[in-house]
Amino acid sequence: MRIGIDDMACYVPSLYLDIRQLAEARGIAYEKLAHGLGLLKMAITDAHEDAATMAAEAIAELMTKNNLRPEQIGRIYLGTESALDAAKPTATYAVEMVQQRLGGSFRRCDVVDMTFACIGATDAMENCLDWVAGHEGRMAIVVASDVAKYELESTGEYTQGAGAVAVLIKWNPRLLEIPRQFGVAMDSVHDFYKPRREQFTETPVFDGPFSNQCYQNRMTEALQHFRELSGAEEPALSDRWARMIFHLPYAFHGKRIYVEEFISERKQAGDWAAICESNGLEEPHSAILTEPLAFDKNWQAFVKAAGKTPEYKQFVKQKLEKAQRASSDVGNLYTASIFMALMSTFASDFNENSQLTGKRFGFVAYGSGSKSKVFEGIVQEGWAEVAGHFRLFEKLSERRAIDYGTYEKLHRYELSQPVFPQEGRFALHSVGEDGVTLGARYYGQFHLNGRAVVQRTQPAELVS
Amino acid sequence: MRIGIDDMACYVPSLYLDIRQLAEARGIAYEKLAHGLGLLKMAITDAHEDAATMAAEAIAELMTKNNLRPEQIGRIYLGTESALDAAKPTATYAVEMVQQRLGGSFRRCDVVDMTFACIGATDAMENCLDWVAGHEGRMAIVVASDVAKYELESTGEYTQGAGAVAVLIKWNPRLLEIPRQFGVAMDSVHDFYKPRREQFTETPVFDGPFSNQCYQNRMTEALQHFRELSGAEEPALSDRWARMIFHLPYAFHGKRIYVEEFISERKQAGDWAAICESNGLEEPHSAILTEPLAFDKNWQAFVKAAGKTPEYKQFVKQKLEKAQRASSDVGNLYTASIFMALMSTFASDFNENSQLTGKRFGFVAYGSGSKSKVFEGIVQEGWAEVAGHFRLFEKLSERRAIDYGTYEKLHRYELSQPVFPQEGRFALHSVGEDGVTLGARYYGQFHLNGRAVVQRTQPAELVS
Repeated sequence: MRIGIDDMACYVPSLYLDIRQLAEARGIAYEKLAHGLGLLKMAITDAHEDAATMAAEAIAELMTKNNLRPEQIGRIYLGTESALDAAKPTATYAVEMVQQRLGGSFRRCDVVDMTFACIGATDAMENCLDWVAGHEGRMAIVVASDVAKYELESTGEYTQGAGAVAVLIKWNPRLLEIPRQFGVAMDSVHDFYKPRREQFTETPVFDGPFSNQCYQNRMTEALQHFRELSGAEEPALSDRWARMIFHLPYAFHGKRIYVEEFISERKQAGDWAAICESNGLEEPHSAILTEPLAFDKNWQAFVKAAGKTPEYKQFVKQKLEKAQRASSDVGNLYTASIFMALMSTFASDFNENSQLTGKRFGFVAYGSGSKSKVFEGIVQEGWAEVAGHFRLFEKLSERRAIDYGTYEKLHRYELSQPVFPQEGRFALHSVGEDGVTLGARYYGQFHLNGRAVVQRTQPAELVS
Repeated sequence: MRIGIDDMACYVPSLYLDIRQLAEARGIAYEKLAHGLGLLKMAITDAHEDAATMAAEAIAELMTKNNLRPEQIGRIYLGTESALDAAKPTATYAVEMVQQRLGGSFRRCDVVDMTFACIGATDAMENCLDWVAGHEGRMAIVVASDVAKYELESTGEYTQGAGAVAVLIKWNPRLLEIPRQFGVAMDSVHDFYKPRREQFTETPVFDGPFSNQCYQNRMTEALQHFRELSGAEEPALSDRWARMIFHLPYAFHGKRIYVEEFISERKQAGDWAAICESNGLEEPHSAILTEPLAFDKNWQAFVKAAGKTPEYKQFVKQKLEKAQRASSDVGNLYTASIFMALMSTFASDFNENSQLTGKRFGFVAYGSGSKSKVFEGIVQEGWAEVAGHFRLFEKLSERRAIDYGTYEKLHRYELSQPVFPQEGRFALHSVGEDGVTLGARYYGQFHLNGRAVVQRTQPAELVS
């Protein structure tokens, strides 16, 4: 049996801040952000948007374009680290909205939230693959939705983004078969987290360089685990993969993090000495490495030089670059980033008329705290027809730029009215203020009639 | 293949408040709580305990008594609505502690948190059953851990409790085979939830009567879904089950909530008229039912009377009562309640030398927000030997009573020192106060040497 991803749909807020504006406001060189990290635009949630509305938009689009009724979907599993409640799943809010738009009933649909920083939706997908495999004809939707928001003026600010991706898991999928072999690496660390604090804040506590190191370590361990599980015979694992799909906290993270692995792989494959020679690279002798590699300046300089070789650039161009494109235009989507990277790759390959059927994609997922999963997908015959309907880059080109002042107001929640309401879009209607509805979130759809009004979903049951 | 629950272990805090003390302090009749709801003792977390330490204790006991090394466990999935972080799973903290005690490495163990109020751990179990079934010899641990804490003087206060249950999912299990057929019913409602609020609080917003109604409605729908999935031929589904294991927010909830279902079932089975006749019960004629049944006084009085018939009492005694026993002594454990109900049943049946091999247990899980799952288990030949080692009621009898004043201080977090530290027990060591460790939680084990000192787990990786 073949189980995997049949189709995908994304939702990205209609507002973005050009990274030039942020660079100017913060006195950071634009080149550092654009050419160093690959950051061009940050998707910004409007005043009425949150993880639930974005998830709902992505699910509704996925279902609509596949003519799916709610009764056909056995599961909607949400990965998020932007949950709106500690008990009631954000997925229930999303499903309530989708039901308002599409009609029908999700009464027998199993929904839940899964939490492990940026890898929670990958976890959700692995579990849905298992469940779908359990009975012919089952269908599940995995949805990743997050608002990657950092404190103003923090070092994470320029990596911000927001969005959701919904993924249809089916038998005989048209996009990717995903064999259920997941290499796993886990270790409890504090590289990025959102602890309980007296005063609520949705921004994380993080240590960027440490988190990069954790990502790299977990990735290396998960690659090794995947190698053992899959019985892959290629000396260099990435030789097996036509494309590599990383979790991208910023667009160039994959290509930055993979250099040391590339060195190891080329050593395994036996062509590293030739690459060094043709580039005049000399590997630091182990005797001069006094620190752990992650902190040794000689080693780090060598890795940096290795990343600039034509061989590595060719590797990046061939396998990594297409995944970066959407990321540059939206920023970090946390759980949704790896799925957006996959959509970006497929959409770009469709535009370039690539021949991908039967080829393998390698995936590197990561969640702080920390865990990595490595797995692969096999591109299916119908991929181009499906990817041709993503409209990914078209959607991204239809957004509205906001200025820095608007950005800051949205960040501080100082705008009670949406900047750019659109007919029929899901929106937060109101939040209960006391008693048994304190903090209860009510959603609906915009109805534009002179002014923007949110028409609420109908309460599902009588309240006592 | 047979997949299911091989063994279980629970952790309940060593402190409890006798419900008499609370009844006195609040001016509530003790009989109402003890005889009306089945509440006798509330398990109370000590100053150093939380959802992570309790989960760790339950996992460590389960692994120790089964001689399991960390490397053998492919998954540890945590269900909780008492998460300590919105991104880093509480499961990672638990695993870090278990590794400190048992040694070895969980490096390749997939851990994650699942959130759907009280049903999150049931969801985790369903997913782990699928995963374990995917490859012979796989083992997973599901752990449910929660602190059911309500505001002082609220109507939820007397249902409080705390604890964790760890469940070993294996091939050829010794306790229960669980066929992978889960009836599901879901609807987005606000019966009980923990919304984001500016000021953090771990207590929920809830509407008790409404939540009972949602529980009952979802249960009825999930029973119907299970009936269709399972192809069960019994006119009354509960005739199929030797025991029924409910999520118990309070001990008597299962028996209170099931009366209407019992009436429907006996009608299906054709013996309801005889039960009415022998008890002088007269069902209200539909013409006089002016309100929906849930609010109609005539109907509610009739249901109440039906619950007092010897037939219903016999049903409760035979199928529900053993599950209530532990609940009466610990209170609500949220996600862990249904698993505690199962342990309570097995431990009681072991003590009474019941013949259970080959019999079926029916399960009714519920999570507010809202979702129910109905499934069943088939008791395995080795059940008595395994249940004989639970030590459940022995553990509960070894706890310490605290007085009302201590309870209130613990509730308000006014005690910095533990009331009853025990050698080797897992404990919160400290919480980071600024910079990149703000809110980071550090754990360890008590070392009693004159005074209680927590020996910290070793940091897993160098921080940059």
